[in-house]
Parts: sequence; C-alpha cells; structure tokens
Amino acid sequence: MLDGLYKPRAVAVIGASTKTLSIGYRVLENLRMHDFRGPIFPINPRERSVRSFRCYRSVLEVPDEIDLANICIPAKFVPKAVEECGEKGIKFVIIHSAGFREVGEKGQALENEVLETARRYGIRIYGPNSQGVMNSDPEVSLYANFTFTPMKPGNISILAQSGGVAELLNLNLERIGVGFRMYGSNGNASDISIDELLEYFGSDDETRVIMLYVESFQDPQRFVEVASAITPHKPILAIKSGTSEEGARAITSHTGALLDVDTSTDVIFEKAGVIRFHTQEDLVQAAVAFSRQPPPRGNTVTVVTNAGGPAIQATDQAMALDLGLTKLSGKTQQALRECLNPMSSVRNPVDTTATAGPDEFGPIMKILADDPDVHSLLLTLVTPFFVDNMGVAEQITGALEGCGKPVVATYMTNENWAHVIQKVRDAGIPVFDYPETAARVLAAMARYVAIRDRDPGEAETLEVDADAARKVLADAKPSGDGFLPAADVTRLLAAYSISLARSVRSTSGSGAAGAASDLRFPVVLKVDHEDVVHKTDEGGVVLDIPDAGALERAVAEMDTRFAGRSIAPAYVVQEFLTGGREVIMGLKDAAGAGTMIMIGTGGIYTEVLRDAQFRLAPLTRTDARSMIAALKGHSILAGTRGEPSVDMESLEDILLKLGQMAGDLPEIVEMDLNPVLAFAEPGRTAVVDARIRVRS
Amino acid sequence: MLDGLYKPRAVAVIGASTKTLSIGYRVLENLRMHDFRGPIFPINPRERSVRSFRCYRSVLEVPDEIDLANICIPAKFVPKAVEECGEKGIKFVIIHSAGFREVGEKGQALENEVLETARRYGIRIYGPNSQGVMNSDPEVSLYANFTFTPMKPGNISILAQSGGVAELLNLNLERIGVGFRMYGSNGNASDISIDELLEYFGSDDETRVIMLYVESFQDPQRFVEVASAITPHKPILAIKSGTSEEGARAITSHTGALLDVDTSTDVIFEKAGVIRFHTQEDLVQAAVAFSRQPPPRGNTVTVVTNAGGPAIQATDQAMALDLGLTKLSGKTQQALRECLNPMSSVRNPVDTTATAGPDEFGPIMKILADDPDVHSLLLTLVTPFFVDNMGVAEQITGALEGCGKPVVATYMTNENWAHVIQKVRDAGIPVFDYPETAARVLAAMARYVAIRDRDPGEAETLEVDADAARKVLADAKPSGDGFLPAADVTRLLAAYSISLARSVRSTSGSGAAGAASDLRFPVVLKVDHEDVVHKTDEGGVVLDIPDAGALERAVAEMDTRFAGRSIAPAYVVQEFLTGGREVIMGLKDAAGAGTMIMIGTGGIYTEVLRDAQFRLAPLTRTDARSMIAALKGHSILAGTRGEPSVDMESLEDILLKLGQMAGDLPEIVEMDLNPVLAFAEPGRTAVVDARIRVRS
Repeated sequence: MLDGLYKPRAVAVIGASTKTLSIGYRVLENLRMHDFRGPIFPINPRERSVRSFRCYRSVLEVPDEIDLANICIPAKFVPKAVEECGEKGIKFVIIHSAGFREVGEKGQALENEVLETARRYGIRIYGPNSQGVMNSDPEVSLYANFTFTPMKPGNISILAQSGGVAELLNLNLERIGVGFRMYGSNGNASDISIDELLEYFGSDDETRVIMLYVESFQDPQRFVEVASAITPHKPILAIKSGTSEEGARAITSHTGALLDVDTSTDVIFEKAGVIRFHTQEDLVQAAVAFSRQPPPRGNTVTVVTNAGGPAIQATDQAMALDLGLTKLSGKTQQALRECLNPMSSVRNPVDTTATAGPDEFGPIMKILADDPDVHSLLLTLVTPFFVDNMGVAEQITGALEGCGKPVVATYMTNENWAHVIQKVRDAGIPVFDYPETAARVLAAMARYVAIRDRDPGEAETLEVDADAARKVLADAKPSGDGFLPAADVTRLLAAYSISLARSVRSTSGSGAAGAASDLRFPVVLKVDHEDVVHKTDEGGVVLDIPDAGALERAVAEMDTRFAGRSIAPAYVVQEFLTGGREVIMGLKDAAGAGTMIMIGTGGIYTEVLRDAQFRLAPLTRTDARSMIAALKGHSILAGTRGEPSVDMESLEDILLKLGQMAGDLPEIVEMDLNPVLAFAEPGRTAVVDARIRVRS
Repeated sequence: MLDGLYKPRAVAVIGASTKTLSIGYRVLENLRMHDFRGPIFPINPRERSVRSFRCYRSVLEVPDEIDLANICIPAKFVPKAVEECGEKGIKFVIIHSAGFREVGEKGQALENEVLETARRYGIRIYGPNSQGVMNSDPEVSLYANFTFTPMKPGNISILAQSGGVAELLNLNLERIGVGFRMYGSNGNASDISIDELLEYFGSDDETRVIMLYVESFQDPQRFVEVASAITPHKPILAIKSGTSEEGARAITSHTGALLDVDTSTDVIFEKAGVIRFHTQEDLVQAAVAFSRQPPPRGNTVTVVTNAGGPAIQATDQAMALDLGLTKLSGKTQQALRECLNPMSSVRNPVDTTATAGPDEFGPIMKILADDPDVHSLLLTLVTPFFVDNMGVAEQITGALEGCGKPVVATYMTNENWAHVIQKVRDAGIPVFDYPETAARVLAAMARYVAIRDRDPGEAETLEVDADAARKVLADAKPSGDGFLPAADVTRLLAAYSISLARSVRSTSGSGAAGAASDLRFPVVLKVDHEDVVHKTDEGGVVLDIPDAGALERAVAEMDTRFAGRSIAPAYVVQEFLTGGREVIMGLKDAAGAGTMIMIGTGGIYTEVLRDAQFRLAPLTRTDARSMIAALKGHSILAGTRGEPSVDMESLEDILLKLGQMAGDLPEIVEMDLNPVLAFAEPGRTAVVDARIRVRS
C-alpha cells in the first residue's frame, strides 16, 4: 500500500531552500500554496526558517512523526539523508534529485547505495530523478512535485514514465477545465514501479479512469497481472511510445518478421484489457468522456444535429472506427416526427434543422434517452441567432440527466455563447471542438465495453505427450544459433500430435530416393543441413517431383550443389500436398511478457499482407477462434466463391497445443510452422515445414 | 471574374429589416459592424431607415450604381427582386433566402425561374439558400453573410459546401488567433459553382492556402482542371465527406469491387494535386502552418526538445507518416556538442536537457537553420522555472527568422508563460497543443511538396488499331447488362495488341475438343454464355486439363450442366499458363471524373488485400510506373527471395493502352482483365480472362 506516499500525515522537505530557482524551494512552495492538510517540515541546516516554516537541521530533530520525505539535495548527499530518514522511521522517500543511474556508472553505484540503505530500514523509494507525486483529494491536497502545472480535483489519475508527458497530459486536461485525482511520474523507478503505482490507482475508489504513458515495460507479466485486475472495473487508457524503433532486425524467421516493435505492446495491452491510443490528444479527450459519462451498452451511435454538414463528418468518422449508426425504429421516428418541423430528418443522423428550439429539443432528447436501441448520443450543434440556445441547452441537459447513456457534444459557436457550452459541460457532457473528435471518443468507449465484456472462454487442455517432447529437447543437438535438426522437429511435433506431411529422411542421396518408395508421388525434396536456413533461396528445395526417376535426378543435382560442405547434407523427401490453403503458425518468446502464439496468412503474400494475429499463451478455444476470425485472410479459410471452409477446428487445436507447449517447454524461444496446409476434409491439416529454435 | 461579388463598390440589402432575429437585419448589421468600405443601401418598402441607413423601396430607386445585391426576402418574392436587380444593372446577387430546390419540386421551379431571369440580364447568382460571402481585405471589408463568426484578416481562404462546416473552420482558426482572407459557402450553387469560387480564390494573390470542404463534385472534370492550375502555386487542403456511404453495391466486376466510395475522390484529388485530410482538426492545423511557413525542401524532420518524452512521441508520429528523421552530419553534431552541456543528446532528436537557456538555444538554432540537411524543424519545449524562457523564445525566433524552412512548435506550459508562446506565434511559428500535431502538420507540408514537385512524365502513345476496335464495338451484340461476348473481347484486345492466352472458341462441345488440337496441353475449358457471368462459381471453368481425352470428358460434363438453356453455350479452350504472377487490371468510368485505370494484386488474395491503384486516364509511363510501384504486392512482382522481376514494361504498356482506350472508346464503361499473368521473360505477359461492359 502506498498510502504513506499519497496520503502522508506529515511531510519533510530535505533541502528546502530560499533560492526561488531551486527544486527545494519549489517543492516546499508547491506544498504550501496547495495547502497540504498536514504539517510541513523543512530540513536545512543553514536556515532558521523557509517561507515562515521553522527549519530543522535534520529529520532526526523533527519532534513529530513523518510519513514522507522529499529529498531535493545534490545526489552525493542523498545516501546520508536516506539513512537519517531510516533512523527517524520515515517509510516513504521521494528523491527529486537527479545524478543517479541516468548519468552513468557512478550514478548507478550511488543509486544502489541508496536502495540498500532503504531496504535496511524498510523505506520505499520513489525515484530518484523524479518529478514527484500529487493527490488532489481535498482531505490530503498533496503537491509533492516540482512542476508548475495546476492541481484541480477530478477523477482521472495520471501515470507517466516521462515527467514532460505527465505535465502535458495535465495541462491539456486543465485547458478544458478538467482536473485529476492522483498523479505520478517516478523517474528512474528504482524501487516503487509503474505497476505498483498502477495497482494503487486502481484500488482508489475516486479514480474513475487511469491515463497511462509507458516508454518500456519493466516487468511485462506483472503489468498484465496488475492491469487485468483493474480493467474490468475502470478503464486504463494508454500510450506506449517508441513505436518507430528500428530494432528487432536480426530476427531470422517469418514469425519474427511479422512481429514489429509494436506487436508485443498490442499483445500485452490486449491481454490486460488496456485501451491503446496513438496520440495524446485522443487519450486526453477519451479520458474526459470516460470520467464524466457512463460506458455505452452497445456499439452504435445516434447523431443529432441542427446543422447538416458536421453530422456527416461525425458519421464518416464513426463508421471508419467501426461504430454502427443506430437504426431508429419506425416508432421512434414517428415520435420524433411529431416534435419536429417537416423539413427535419428523423432518421439517424437526426437533423432538427436550425429553427428547432427548446420546445423541440426537450421532447426529442427524452425520446432518444428512453429508446433502448440508442446506445450513445453525439450532438453536433450550432447556435442560430434566432433560437433560444440557452433554453435548448437546458432542455438537453434536463432530458438526458441520468439517462445512463454516454452523451458527447460539439458546439460550433463563438465566445458570445460560452455560457451555453458551460451549461452543457456543467451537466457532465463533454463538449469538443470538432465532430470527428466526439465520434472518436465514443468509439473508444465502445472499444472499452467490448473488451471489458469479452468472453475469455474456458481453459481447455488437449492431450499431448509433454514428457516425450522434453526428452527430445534434452537429447537434441541444436545448431550454433539454436535451431533443432529436422528429425527432432518431427519428433517434437509428433509428441504434440501436430501432423507433419509424411516424409522420410536419409543421410545419403541414393538412400533418399530409395526410402521414398513408401510415399505417394508427387514429392518434394529438401536439403537438411545446419548451414542452410533459407532452403528455398539456396536451391535446397525441389517441388512437385512426379516420379522416382525425377527424384533421383533431383538428388544428384543437389549432391553436386552442396558438395564440399564440412558435413555432407541429409535429405528429406516429403509428400507434396496440393490444394490446401496456406497458413503460417508459430510461437515466440515475447521479451519478458511470456510467449506469443501466432497465426497468419501464408504463401507468397505472407510478408505483403503482414496478416497475423498474436496472443499471449495460454489460449482458450475462444482465443484461438477469435485469432482466426481476426485475420484479414479469414474469408479465404472460411471459403470464398462457393468453396467449403477449411477444417477450422484443426487449426484451433494447433494454436491450443502451441499454447500448451509455451508452458511445457520454456526452452523453445521460437517456432515457425510454415506453411501449414489446411483442407476442407477434417483431419487433413498438416504442417509442411517447421523450424524450432531453442535457447542457446 | 467574381470581383463584383467579392469586391463590390456598393451593396444593396433587399429585405433589410429592423427585426433583430431576421436575416435581413443580420446581413445589414454584419456589413455595418465590419465597416464595409462602400455605401450600403437597405431596400425595404415599409421602413424609412434601418440602423440609420436611409431605406429605398426598390433597388430601382437607388441613385448610385450597385455591384452586389443581398436578397433576404421570402422565396416567392425573389424572382421579382432579381428582375429589378436586372433592370438596375446589378451583376451579382447573393440569395440568402431558403425555400428553393432544397424544399422540393415547387422550390426547384422557383429556382429555375430566378435563374432564367438572371440569365436574361447577365446576372450571376450566388445561392440560393446560401450563407453568403466574406472578404477580409481591409480595402473591402465585406461581411455579406448572416453568421456571427468573426472576420479577421489573414491569408487562408475558406470554401465549403456546408455553411456549418465553413463556420466551424473559421471558428477554429479564430480560436488560435488566425484570420482568413476570403470565405464562401454557396448553398444550392444554382449558378456560381464551387469550382468557379475555387478558381477565383486561386487567382487571389493574398490567398496563400485554400481550405476546401466538399460533399459532392458538381463537375469532377472541371474541378480537376481548376484545381490542377492552382496547386503548383498554392496548396489546396481538402476534406471530402460522405465517405461512409453504402452505395456502389451493385457493381459486378472486381475492378468495381475494389473501388469504394472514397477511391474516386482520392483519384480526383491525386490528379489535381489536392492534399486530402480526414478530419477538420488536421485540416485547420495544417492550414495554419501553410499560411505562415514556407514549404520544406525535403521530407525529413529535425526534432529539438528540452524535455525527452514528448520528442519521442513526435518522432513516432512523424515516422508513422513517412517523414524521415534527418540524419545530422558529424560536423553538425560536433557544432551542437560545443554549445550544449555533456548530458545533452546531439543526435536527432536533439535533446538540450531542461537546463539549456538562451545562450544555448541561439547558437544551436543557427546551426540547424544553416544546415542544408535540415528540411524542417519541430520544437517541443517545456518552460523550466529556472530558465529564462522568454530569452529562449527570443533566441529561437531571432535565429530562425527567414531561414526558409518550416518550423512548428509545441510548448508544454501553463498560462504564466502565455507571453512566451505569443512571442513565438508572433514570429509566425505555429504552436500546437500536442507534439503529434506538429508532426502531422509537417507531414502534410512534405506531402504537398512531393505532389507539387512530382514529375508527370511525357505523354506517350503506343501503336494501336483504334479503328478496328471501334468496328468491333459497332458490330457487337452486348448482353442485356452490357457485357461483350468473348469473341468480341478477344478481337478488341487484339486491336490494342494486348495478348490473351491462346485460345479457340467453338459453339459446340465436340467442335471445341477438335479445335483445341492446335493448342499446347494443359488447357482450360470455359463456358461462354451470356447468362454465365461468374463462370467459376457456376461450374463453367475446368483448369489444367492434361490431354485430349480429358478435354472431351470435360466438354461432355459441361454440355450436361448447361443443357436446357434457351441458347446452347459456346466453349473456349485456352492454354493453361502456369508459373506467372497474377495481377488484375482494368478501367472504369469514374462517374463524371473521366475514366480510371486500375492495377491490383491478383489471385485469391485480390479481395483480401484490396491492393489496387487507380489513376485517371490518360496516363504517362511515369504514372504507370508509379502505380505499379505503389502496390503493396509490388515486391512480389519485383521478385522476392531471389526470384527475377516480372517484365514490368509489358504491364506498363497495358496500363498505357487502357489509358488510350479510355479516350478512343468512350462506350466502354468497365473492363476487367483478371487475371493477367506476368512472367520474367519479356513479352510473355498475357491476359487470361477479360470482361468488357459497354454503355447499355
């Protein structure tokens, strides 16, 4: 629990200063100006008082108990100050000072020293190199932070890995008159982590929405755990930056190539039910709506306008974001018609025309508020000079009060009508500058509801022989970069009852030709040599070999091609399957977040389409189904132009087994089943080629 | 020329009224309050004066010449008023009154009557049902409009098909302190069109940017003509609404299916060099930047920050929009390093750290302004309390003045530092609320430059026999819905030297089998019957027939399948080409904008990928090349994994020939070459199947 940090009864400011440009002055002044509800104790051996507060030489001299110390002194003095905090029994320390890990090795050593001291005394450290915390709760009113941004009570909490971004988010809330609840930007995060702060904000009853900005996950699994417990009750709206990094280049397989920097973030957020945004503006606007309006009960929007054009724009944007347009029933349309002039449109978007006044808006809002088909309302209004616009605002807010549906608005007007907008805002209806913004906000709300209410499905364990697979791994001799030999791949898949196309393997060319007599022609010939990773590129694959004679010739050619390698190549002859639909599947270690399972559209378009779905293991059958359904190429699998669907269950089964494998065989860092051929006939689905890489 | 409309020397207000809630009052009041530079003549037979202006019973009584009449009387009186305007010699009339075409037939008749009268006298009509016009030129100061939005001189002109949107755009400019030049929203557009207004704004020297909102194109070809003449000199920034319409459903072929409602707008804007936006906010923000900053000389951005996090966000957004990050030379980095503290980062993004003050910002801005690699600057700054932020702003604006590169900024600060932001804005540097906005604006500027400077290529006419094709069309007997029989399709393509896979056609099954002896097996058998449009779906295609016996059996089966039709089916036997890469090509009438030529990725992924490029005919080879290069599937054609490229020139040739066909054979409304197989060997490219629909 971080109550001592966010709800301290008394605070010390170590390094409180009279120099107005110092952090020690700023923190004290911020606490004072925002009227912190407990006592403030400045610590400075060289001053008698700062800002009329009596000064102490050390926290040890302070007569009262202190919950929180703010440290604002140069880095090298911090260890001693923390030691004294320990002796004093202080349990929370914010280190505002910089000069630690962020400046290199020496700073890192200092940070370690501080941490060690803190652990000794059971002190929790926030920072170092941190802006601080704020809690706008009027019972606390804690501004333990060195910025200038305002603190106004609200129910949005702000958590950001960058102080600059935290400030920006707060400033942009303020610009539209919205406050916040709690605020945190924890700098180097040496002890108290973003996850811990998130958990604390999640447990705060007054926090209705959490805005989160992350640059990197410290512990992705912990993040998923913490966030998953919060999102069913309150939305977490997040931005992850650094999406344009050009990392992850050296990845060898397809599964990896389809996985850009952003994917793992998406997978983590998906698992945790976090709503992702790509711009701060969208984040701020959605947060405002979530903080003031209830979530919708469905994903359609009803647009009401008195101005035509802007409603079209709102509708376009809503459709582009997969919101539906509510189909108003005949009854509702009739009821609206009775309230409105004949020039009005009573279909959605409802256009009252510019002449509609309070007498029209009151009843139509009531009709829409009462209609169960109406999930959310988007009002886009102008203020015609011949209309009682204040009366319209009063009627709208009155009729919609407590209707249980989200309502957002845009007013196109000028400052003469600011009081009208204020009236609407005071009723909790967010008013945005542009109709498209209102549509985007409603789309985000619908997205939250869809994620919150999704059915996770039941856990399901398919029968596999994990022990056999473990034995394969224990005995395997992977290549230098960790790839398993083909024979081991075959045995490992067999242990999980994942069918490979029938094949035989031989260490000599002539042997290959002979051994293939059991297979049905046509066949494929593939080289199997640890130096040859991209077999096709290196001439190590011959497809569609019609008969034994052709196979012998192909083997002879390949013998020539791969002659002179240190080890002679082995060969695999495999039945050539035709007519299946290609997918690619795999699993991949997700850098601390667990293991991601993947399915994508296969064939030559794999890289063009970049059509792949990733989920963190373990999977339920519902997960597996939704992954397949979310593929752009789903229609190809389901059958276009009268073709039958492929056997979807067999694909789901492989996904589930990959999920189990992720748990059973943590040594595997990457597996690539490419292609997998799926057929309409049940049970024919087969992996044609597979690669497995283990931790090396 | 519309000078009489936008720069009238004297104006009349017909229906000027003392009733403050009437349009007749509003227009007069707006003209008066904004201090129109010429005389205003109110026309109202029932008043002696309105707002102290002497009233006249009719324009005919006014002693002076009048250039522009504003009509604000009920619709039914408008024809007479226009008649009197004609007698008076007035050349421009704005009809603010509603009650015309928009209310149905009776209104349409009234509108026609007005137009006829106007034509008789050479009067140009603006409206009816129109908001009006504004011209902020201080020499004119014309507010002939009934809204309340402000008029502040600027160099952005606003043109919108919706009065509500025009107002919104203006209000949002005002909110950030930016004015406009000319303003038009012409209601029913019965005479003076959007295109004509656009042309006029284009010719206005003081207009530096045009903001355009269109709901539908009245005359797409004219629009392209007018806009194309403007965009090389000044940007047109546009929004087209109505993109979510669910029209265009009954389209039969692939070319059509790939063509959603939005595509024709994109094609039109592309041809005209118009920059398209999808939200009004993006439009407004970009317009502000274009109005104050020069276009960039290249498409990379240099980000400078004193705050870390926000720069990452700006960079992410810039990368997502295909802006590059300027690679700063070693020399520049060294020069920056000498000005900045050791904690700073001198790579792009340049991070000065929060302590940098005027002494650092002056020199580094000068270094970046002088570096030819730096195309545009994005500043994202906080205002640390210990820094002379006004000094920083002075140094920045001083160093960058006249640097010839676009500069945009975001300041994360609060109202205490409003004077700093104002200082930056006064220097013409737009300051946005969010770093992502700044990145989007620079991306739009780079997009404009890329379009403005694109090389259209030389016109090129390939040798074709258009007369032979015309004869084919003249003699053809298309099906009820306009499709040509297969034989005519073959002949028409032959006239344009577009190769079809070799085939023979026969009206009887046995004939087909016999005639096929000239072809090389394997072959394909296809039915040719006007009732059978989707041959594959209806069992009218058998692929990969290995020999004559199999062909005979296939024909026999098909005879059975299609027995009992009113006309017996014909058959086409065609060589079965394997190993080519599939594309789909075509042309399509673009509802008034001309003819669009298309190329897309073919095969089963056609509809999944929706990977198609459209351009308006005629095409240059440069156009054809850029269409192919812009395909997502381009890498497949160019050869992946060591495969050779297909013969691109042959694909370009077909595109050019389709372009010529669009001009030569306007009867063709749709052509679908699907698939076209392209091979690495020059000249082997062949159309496998083709459908042509003519105007029916």
